[in-house]
Amino acid sequence: MNVGGTHYRTIWLDEDGTSVRIVDQTLLPHRFETRTLTRVDEIAEAITSMRVRGAPLIGAAAAYGVCLALAADPSDDALDRACAALLATRPTAINLRWALDEMRAAVSDHAPDKRAQAAYARAAAICQDDVETCRRIGVHGLPLIQVAAHRKGGRTVNVLTHCNAGWLATVDWGTALSPIYHAHGSGIAVHVWVDETRPRNQGSSLTAFELGAHGVPHTIIADNAGGHLMQEGRVDLCIVGTDRTAANGDVANKIGTYLKALAAKDTGVPFYVALPHSTIDWSMPEGLGHIPIEERSAREVTEITGRLPNGSLATVEISAQGSGAANPAFDVTPARLVTALITERGVCAASREGLQGLYPERVENAHGAMSP
Amino acid sequence: MNVGGTHYRTIWLDEDGTSVRIVDQTLLPHRFETRTLTRVDEIAEAITSMRVRGAPLIGAAAAYGVCLALAADPSDDALDRACAALLATRPTAINLRWALDEMRAAVSDHAPDKRAQAAYARAAAICQDDVETCRRIGVHGLPLIQVAAHRKGGRTVNVLTHCNAGWLATVDWGTALSPIYHAHGSGIAVHVWVDETRPRNQGSSLTAFELGAHGVPHTIIADNAGGHLMQEGRVDLCIVGTDRTAANGDVANKIGTYLKALAAKDTGVPFYVALPHSTIDWSMPEGLGHIPIEERSAREVTEITGRLPNGSLATVEISAQGSGAANPAFDVTPARLVTALITERGVCAASREGLQGLYPERVENAHGAMSP
Repeated sequence: MNVGGTHYRTIWLDEDGTSVRIVDQTLLPHRFETRTLTRVDEIAEAITSMRVRGAPLIGAAAAYGVCLALAADPSDDALDRACAALLATRPTAINLRWALDEMRAAVSDHAPDKRAQAAYARAAAICQDDVETCRRIGVHGLPLIQVAAHRKGGRTVNVLTHCNAGWLATVDWGTALSPIYHAHGSGIAVHVWVDETRPRNQGSSLTAFELGAHGVPHTIIADNAGGHLMQEGRVDLCIVGTDRTAANGDVANKIGTYLKALAAKDTGVPFYVALPHSTIDWSMPEGLGHIPIEERSAREVTEITGRLPNGSLATVEISAQGSGAANPAFDVTPARLVTALITERGVCAASREGLQGLYPERVENAHGAMSP
Repeated sequence: MNVGGTHYRTIWLDEDGTSVRIVDQTLLPHRFETRTLTRVDEIAEAITSMRVRGAPLIGAAAAYGVCLALAADPSDDALDRACAALLATRPTAINLRWALDEMRAAVSDHAPDKRAQAAYARAAAICQDDVETCRRIGVHGLPLIQVAAHRKGGRTVNVLTHCNAGWLATVDWGTALSPIYHAHGSGIAVHVWVDETRPRNQGSSLTAFELGAHGVPHTIIADNAGGHLMQEGRVDLCIVGTDRTAANGDVANKIGTYLKALAAKDTGVPFYVALPHSTIDWSMPEGLGHIPIEERSAREVTEITGRLPNGSLATVEISAQGSGAANPAFDVTPARLVTALITERGVCAASREGLQGLYPERVENAHGAMSP
């Protein structure tokens, strides 16, 4: 999408044809800067430190990580080491494993001297596929917003979202925000309640940044506020993303998603989850108690970075000194709280039957291990 | 309770017998400083800016505000102006109105030259009553933690709390934290999950500060994390405070309380609300749609104050520039989500019948206006 009138993707190949360029999302919303990565360990660091984040973008970045590794050393050993290092960066996102499996499949039949070229071709295709997948999620999600707009007789439709599942979390368009961009683009009056999304504030920094840059009306709220707004009838629907979807429709998403889904259920607000096929973990029969939940640093809770009045960035400690913090990064929202899933193939019930209806080719694998 | 080995209340009369001293809670947890207030407008400012906060403490501060006003001018007109100014400081806390009604009743029959003396006596009694009320809330809430400790065979009992309903929110002991202080004091292994409580972070600053100062084990979490911890069985019970309790047991408390109550219900975790009688609004038949919800400044969401590495305090902007924010300060938790209420008279169901059982003298007023 656009920033300052220029179209950007979140990750692209440098003009040198080898290096990878990214938007450094750790500097957002304070500074919009790009960064050039030339080694696989730089890709791994970019994922771990969340310079690139969001399940689809993590997959795309990991794919380019394999490219950089093979450009330096096309051996089987280097491929194994690269995949292991990249897989270890974030435990929850299923796309990471998916993308690495795709890259392995794309290069393993090639002789070493052809592997880098094959890898770059596959990584570019993964990125292009992601753009098209996200565009389709928007096309399929748009009618859900149109229905709300019709019901409201043209008054503004208020959509609540959590974390950042926008173009910054993907290569372009986004997942949860793609239907919103499509609605905005088609002239529907849409306003987004943006959950701040503590502790890393991806909502107030990334989602607010990208909606603002694209001209979509929005208001930041503390994560605590969504339930109250739903009680007051000020939310027409919720759309969030997911990092991993179990085969029964349970979804793992940014910590706090479960609480918003509970409030939506309690107040009768539709709660939609937007996802590309790559987040579906067909090998996982259900999410609760099965999807591994990443525990991140306590400092993400006890410290925060912001702009001083002079414009420079500073990190301040915000908690009582001597108090520890826990920081689980995701939670699992049971399928019973999800009104529907929005995928690149259409909208379906959050259930095994719903998902299998859209992905009939996966039925045979739904009870066994993930297919290669 | 103790800070640095010295016992403090949150508000007390200065040695001069007229000025009022408070702990300036806007500086916590970074600095522990007291402040001397000599005029009613300074009391009003202290309430509005949340140097003193928490429903019981707001009531006590307002009482001393009337004292300072009458010490300067004991006329009816000055009394009216003081009460109007103090009542306007915070719209949600019922204690404010209760305390001002008490002060009016205490001074109105006195000749002007006796009013200040009567006011100081009543304010001191309100404070002493609050200490005793909070102590009793702890005594009545303690068995609920003892039951959990027994069920766990001596393993640590994990209690989740939201915002600050500790001694810093009252004159001493606290409401929600009083049972925890009593449990800790009686040798029960208790650990507190402290919700950060955005946007003002009263959890990570005030609750964490006071628990740490008193030696109670605790861990700060983002507000988003509580549902996940409950799903994982890592929360044994929740105890929160309330700013206003409707006659049917609905409770208005810090924004986000409703979300935690939903998660507790969904996961089978007991959810208790601790309150002194002064927060009960007998004139309000139910809370949802009736209790006025204060909307506070957007800057509480978009800016935050913390400690720089050199120890000095700085305020940083944390949101995307140009993005607005909404900041409702409270939400209403329906009685159906509340396991029980803990009051200074005992534990009761969150219902009209439950409350009337503990306060039989209020039955006749329960459907009409609040008695004087």
